[in-house]
Amino acid sequence: MAGILDLINGANDIKKVKPSDYNKLAEEIREFLIGNISKTGGHLASNLGTVELTMALHLYLDFPEDKLVWDVGHQAYTHKLLTGRKKEFASLRTFEGLSGFPKRKESACDSLDTGHSSTSLSAAMGLVRARDLRGGDEKIVAVIGDGALSGGMAFEALNNAAELKSNLIIVLNDNKMSISENVGGMANYLGKLRTGDKYINLKQTVEKALNNVPGIGKKIADKIRKSKDSLKRLVIPGMLFEDMGLTYIGPIDGHNLNELSMALASASKAKKAVIIHAVTKKGRGYRPAEKNPSYFHGVDAFDVKTGKNSKAKKGATYTDIFSETMLELGEKHNNLVAITAAMPSGTGLNKFKQKYPERFFDVGIAEEHAVTFAAGLALGGMKPVVAVYSTFLQRAYDQIVHDVCLSSLPVIFAIDRAGIVGNDGETHQGIFDISFLSHIPSLTVMAPKNATELKEMLCFAYTHDGPVAIRYPRGRAYEGLAEYQEPVEYGRSEVIYQSNTAGKKKNAQKNRILLLAAGSMVETGAQIHDILTEEGREVTLVNIRFLRPMDTELLKEMAASHGIWVTLEENVKRGGYGEGVAAYLFEQNLRDIRLLNITLPDQFIEQGDVSVLKEKFGFDPLSLTAHIKDFISHS
Amino acid sequence: MAGILDLINGANDIKKVKPSDYNKLAEEIREFLIGNISKTGGHLASNLGTVELTMALHLYLDFPEDKLVWDVGHQAYTHKLLTGRKKEFASLRTFEGLSGFPKRKESACDSLDTGHSSTSLSAAMGLVRARDLRGGDEKIVAVIGDGALSGGMAFEALNNAAELKSNLIIVLNDNKMSISENVGGMANYLGKLRTGDKYINLKQTVEKALNNVPGIGKKIADKIRKSKDSLKRLVIPGMLFEDMGLTYIGPIDGHNLNELSMALASASKAKKAVIIHAVTKKGRGYRPAEKNPSYFHGVDAFDVKTGKNSKAKKGATYTDIFSETMLELGEKHNNLVAITAAMPSGTGLNKFKQKYPERFFDVGIAEEHAVTFAAGLALGGMKPVVAVYSTFLQRAYDQIVHDVCLSSLPVIFAIDRAGIVGNDGETHQGIFDISFLSHIPSLTVMAPKNATELKEMLCFAYTHDGPVAIRYPRGRAYEGLAEYQEPVEYGRSEVIYQSNTAGKKKNAQKNRILLLAAGSMVETGAQIHDILTEEGREVTLVNIRFLRPMDTELLKEMAASHGIWVTLEENVKRGGYGEGVAAYLFEQNLRDIRLLNITLPDQFIEQGDVSVLKEKFGFDPLSLTAHIKDFISHS
Repeated sequence: MAGILDLINGANDIKKVKPSDYNKLAEEIREFLIGNISKTGGHLASNLGTVELTMALHLYLDFPEDKLVWDVGHQAYTHKLLTGRKKEFASLRTFEGLSGFPKRKESACDSLDTGHSSTSLSAAMGLVRARDLRGGDEKIVAVIGDGALSGGMAFEALNNAAELKSNLIIVLNDNKMSISENVGGMANYLGKLRTGDKYINLKQTVEKALNNVPGIGKKIADKIRKSKDSLKRLVIPGMLFEDMGLTYIGPIDGHNLNELSMALASASKAKKAVIIHAVTKKGRGYRPAEKNPSYFHGVDAFDVKTGKNSKAKKGATYTDIFSETMLELGEKHNNLVAITAAMPSGTGLNKFKQKYPERFFDVGIAEEHAVTFAAGLALGGMKPVVAVYSTFLQRAYDQIVHDVCLSSLPVIFAIDRAGIVGNDGETHQGIFDISFLSHIPSLTVMAPKNATELKEMLCFAYTHDGPVAIRYPRGRAYEGLAEYQEPVEYGRSEVIYQSNTAGKKKNAQKNRILLLAAGSMVETGAQIHDILTEEGREVTLVNIRFLRPMDTELLKEMAASHGIWVTLEENVKRGGYGEGVAAYLFEQNLRDIRLLNITLPDQFIEQGDVSVLKEKFGFDPLSLTAHIKDFISHS
Repeated sequence: MAGILDLINGANDIKKVKPSDYNKLAEEIREFLIGNISKTGGHLASNLGTVELTMALHLYLDFPEDKLVWDVGHQAYTHKLLTGRKKEFASLRTFEGLSGFPKRKESACDSLDTGHSSTSLSAAMGLVRARDLRGGDEKIVAVIGDGALSGGMAFEALNNAAELKSNLIIVLNDNKMSISENVGGMANYLGKLRTGDKYINLKQTVEKALNNVPGIGKKIADKIRKSKDSLKRLVIPGMLFEDMGLTYIGPIDGHNLNELSMALASASKAKKAVIIHAVTKKGRGYRPAEKNPSYFHGVDAFDVKTGKNSKAKKGATYTDIFSETMLELGEKHNNLVAITAAMPSGTGLNKFKQKYPERFFDVGIAEEHAVTFAAGLALGGMKPVVAVYSTFLQRAYDQIVHDVCLSSLPVIFAIDRAGIVGNDGETHQGIFDISFLSHIPSLTVMAPKNATELKEMLCFAYTHDGPVAIRYPRGRAYEGLAEYQEPVEYGRSEVIYQSNTAGKKKNAQKNRILLLAAGSMVETGAQIHDILTEEGREVTLVNIRFLRPMDTELLKEMAASHGIWVTLEENVKRGGYGEGVAAYLFEQNLRDIRLLNITLPDQFIEQGDVSVLKEKFGFDPLSLTAHIKDFISHS
């Protein structure tokens, strides 16, 4: 017999399913998700938690007219299943395959491209205002997790939502977690709501509220003023949100379709912003994920029976090296403190957290606060390390400029996931950080060539009296070139391979090649060096180390002996290191030199395996070598 | 007889003043501020509102050991007066004079350099954590306005402050305004607090709270659940903050030293974060400022008696042109909407607000939300214009990248105060926007040469199907070069003066000068052109118009006829337009050309008149001409 899910092949098909089959459908969706993600990898736990929620929303909304905005978006797999993308799931998160996030180009039912946290309420507010100006009547719903609610811009939106005089439904998907466990006052408050008033029968609540006896209000008021402290123990459902000017409904069971549907129906009547507080369980329906939702937040392929990662581990990652080094530095220096924005595992700070809990701070999804908080710690005599992914650090650009660098405070930014990141796609590639950091006065920007150098750079950064950013890529740490480990010295690059410049014929200088490589591109540069050298060319390879300040002393020296310069960086071109070199050469009137800037293309970069993407953009050693040879012969 | 203020010549001197003289001191401070600011200009209204608050804090704290963190910081004049900087006030906000904001280099009593909003709580949290790790016992107080509380990062900090187990005092300086009137749920909530329970006697409240009768708690709880709606009308003082895990004291009269001192004493006992809600009046004690606090937020010199600006107005500013154009566009296109982050006057959107209130949105100090809200509006079919100062747009870098440009949504960024801004100093100069915008795929970045062109560019931007940023400077709009107004065409620069290239001797090309000027630098470029031409040189002046994309077609054409290129932009060098040209020349193997990049220096730029600063950095036409001639003779 065909399953219920087989009957759903496009948007709104779910409405044809009999209510008595809803549970079976939910079961089938879970089975589908577990089976599929165990092969492709992906965000498992969050999607298992939103099955019923998504079903309820699809029963309530008409697609594509109505608008559903997912915050972050990695929990939208069921939404994709219910809008005709079942067959594409085999290609999930692969090159040219189904995205792990909502994508407007994939479906008219996806209303916003997302990836970063806490944006849904602002975007939904915009959709609401536009609808009202147009005189439209489509429904607009935003789904935001309790984790995303710690992001400041979500609060900015809530603050503005209070002024709406037309309907906006905000579903607060409360699973007590972001990627990691949630922190802060809001999380505690939601916790109180959850436990204080478990799953109130909605209808009953509403009736009772309507039944309130006038006159009693004032009496209660007086008593309350007399006993403010005892009142704190009460927890009036959602009063915090109501105080902000929003209507609150909940808490309700986010796995109960009836409760969800009633809440949506009730919420739809209000001519204002309504929060539906739905309590869900991350990983629901798959025991290993329920037990370890943090691990199953985003996973590689795994064995369904055991839940274990089916791919063998491939050696230490840069994250591992960072993690270990933080332990060592933490032991030596008791003023070293570490800050993460809801990513203790992802950044590798979990070990530091275990060993030095009092010096570890998880601020929640709140990159802005993380950076300025670090500024405060530095002013107080600490050496803060802010560990964050490149793409998420974008959120704190102003804080880096205004709160850290303007005062030249010794904050260390450990920037993981710099460069092409892979399967998460456009929103997660770390391809702008050289550009948005390299122009900031007083900031030092570095990139290590290999595992050892990341460690050295962190140690150097600890000693440096000023802000330092170190960018390093996702994945396996390069172990090669281990014999090259000149001590890290401020502003100085490292010569890896020095071409022989003695006793050569006069115009050898003109054809001698200088490779100026940053971070991950040093490994690539070494491979290019080997190929070109084998062909009889003279090639020098420099590990830039410092993207800012540039080692102009070395550049000057190299100008005398090398006529062909190639810069290599994993970043877009505008604002990158290569442009800086170009400007330097003109500044120094070194126009005899031929310069080739190798960078990522001037575009957002889609999802796919890092190696696939690099090949696509000609970023593999062979393509790059060909590119360089072509440049030489045509310039 | 000498005044009380005369006795205060350094930190902590206020403690020697007799309590009976406090009122007189407050009066003298106000007199001093009004008299001084009427001559120098500066932030008047906010400082008049914080006189008693600052006095209370100085009576409570020991400087410089204790730390006082001012949010934004323009309300810290009394703090400066009380820490020995009275004499420097004559130089307020001038070059090398007293800063209008806290500055660590000015005084050990200034604990943080500020200027942007909503940073104080995060920084103070850092100071608290550092103190606790060090085992210190200094007091730490943050003062934040109700306006700054609408900024998301303040909420991120509050959310984290709930977890503190040691003392942090947050003084909420509630004057119902930021620069303009406050908006949103939080502002409404504070309003209810203010009016619901006016100035409760603190001691009484605390005693009553302690007196609460156990047992009544449960009864009340039941009744509350039955009458949630009536409860909403109650307003329990500060419950929103208490729900967030903070202790709330207030509302108290922020002009009453007794209440303030009692609140501070009471707050200091808590081993957690405490909010003191102090209600103040912006402009207090100076009638014109009380009546029009928005105007007196930041003023030029004025006549004390009348309150009127003592300098004559000097013609239309770019802000005026923007303001007028928005009216015209708004009339023509009913899908044009405008967004400001708490700056309807500063950005010039006040007129649009008046004429099209339903299409105008003031989101409060919330740049992140402003941008993503605009993305939502664009998705809903509107044409949103986000008007914001260059330096404040830094706050929304990630939202520009992730929410607008990734989806190539037609949002227009009207970026006022680009380039050197002047007297507000380091934190307000708009010298990074070319760098943080020019690398973002799908974004178009423009700069107008004069008043007319700003209008043309806005009209162009309206028609363009994608995100557009237009940067323009503070102050008077340039009216010159009015005869040059080629229609704005996507990606095309405009030739202003074309050097005669016909019938010249062969190597004239080598010495012909091409000036590539952006925005405000076109006026300067025209002046340089005139000087150089008068000296018999051949000079072409190009108005770049598009910083992104670069008009490579024109560059290619110019390369054939011009040997000396000079780029001119009011931005730092790294990531700027000039570097892009350098890279382009290498890419095209146009190495015969000599290139000079004229940019602002690689540093934060201090306060001072724009003309003074430009002269200091050799940015005036004469110095630049000399610079160019020097370059020509040495390259």
